[in-house]
Amino acid sequence: MSSPPKAVVLLSGGLDSTTTLAIAKHEGFACYALTLEYGQRHAVEVEAARQIALRFGVVQQVVMPIELRRFGGSALTSDLPVPKDRPLEAMAETIPITYVPARNTIFLAFALSWAEVLGASDIFVGVNALDYSGYPDCRPEYIEAFEKLARLATKAGVEGATFKVHTPLIQWSKAEIIRRGLELGVDFALTTSCYDPISAGLACGRCDACLLRLRGFAENGMVDPRGYAQS
Amino acid sequence: MSSPPKAVVLLSGGLDSTTTLAIAKHEGFACYALTLEYGQRHAVEVEAARQIALRFGVVQQVVMPIELRRFGGSALTSDLPVPKDRPLEAMAETIPITYVPARNTIFLAFALSWAEVLGASDIFVGVNALDYSGYPDCRPEYIEAFEKLARLATKAGVEGATFKVHTPLIQWSKAEIIRRGLELGVDFALTTSCYDPISAGLACGRCDACLLRLRGFAENGMVDPRGYAQS
Repeated sequence: MSSPPKAVVLLSGGLDSTTTLAIAKHEGFACYALTLEYGQRHAVEVEAARQIALRFGVVQQVVMPIELRRFGGSALTSDLPVPKDRPLEAMAETIPITYVPARNTIFLAFALSWAEVLGASDIFVGVNALDYSGYPDCRPEYIEAFEKLARLATKAGVEGATFKVHTPLIQWSKAEIIRRGLELGVDFALTTSCYDPISAGLACGRCDACLLRLRGFAENGMVDPRGYAQS
Repeated sequence: MSSPPKAVVLLSGGLDSTTTLAIAKHEGFACYALTLEYGQRHAVEVEAARQIALRFGVVQQVVMPIELRRFGGSALTSDLPVPKDRPLEAMAETIPITYVPARNTIFLAFALSWAEVLGASDIFVGVNALDYSGYPDCRPEYIEAFEKLARLATKAGVEGATFKVHTPLIQWSKAEIIRRGLELGVDFALTTSCYDPISAGLACGRCDACLLRLRGFAENGMVDPRGYAQS
């Protein structure tokens, strides 16, 4: 019996990346979880990612610290306030202050590096172009450009490897992501999405990420198992 | 008088990146030096980069630690031996063990992030496709793919900005790079290129980087001002 193909899965500890990990595992990949600890306000995500990696029995997890706070420029990596109570329909129209400049390019670059070391050709990332905050580096054309770059960037690419960046969630609504996660046995109580948690385990309930997530559960006729601050 | 345009310059502390910084400054850019401390064996480079940034009066320098040693896979980020005494003509034919998987993609991703925060459209990187070690992420087609990615990856790109990755050295020989650096007043005694230094300030004289550098000075009829181990 041949060993399963390896995949690097970007795992933030949020709902989307956890469902993506479940999908990669379901598709038969030996999963290597890469968690970037980028000085985000919501560092509680990183602890969630550790628990999720354990629960899914990944082959290895690397938690890589990167100090994006040195650049600043985003509400997630500085002391700028996180927007609250934005109407859901407005989210896809403007790119908010929670946008972290070139974040997914940095994340995918690290994933590519590890994939090449592992001899893996597959990278999974839970980007979503539908129920999202209007981030440019979540769009299909961006992902395609990265795949092209990956081939040119690497020794493996020069030698003929083709890197595939899997984005299984890219066209799904948040409700669909939750549904698929539940089918695959994801325990969403472990995941955390909030940009501005009140405390460990207590989401604000008012940032874009919370609002999208709450709507996703509501559309499934469910209550989000994650704890929220009473407001 | 309008303020000069800003540029992020990747500055390793080596001969190439230092000459690149001199060129960016000569072209009138307000220079922001980005030095990645990636767990390389040759960490003495980082100290060189600090001295060079001071000497050139850059507006700001960020030394960003990234722990590529967690992935391994290269003689520069693990305990694998650095090749010595390789014939110069063989260097461009095979990609050696000093290749760091996806390194330039990681470096450029960080540069892009900082550039976007600064409102800069210009990035300078001292890659070289002629006198080099056969690294895939030093080729013009790779740089073009990154520029395309940068436009798709960023809020600034979506809003119409075009990122330019300047590679002034890409087609120059090492001798030409040294000549241009000297014209621009670079003090090459400050720079360090060795992959496997004996001690701070003492280069091995036998790795690819040393051999290319020594030949470059020899072709200019000069002695490299940097200290080398007697062998």
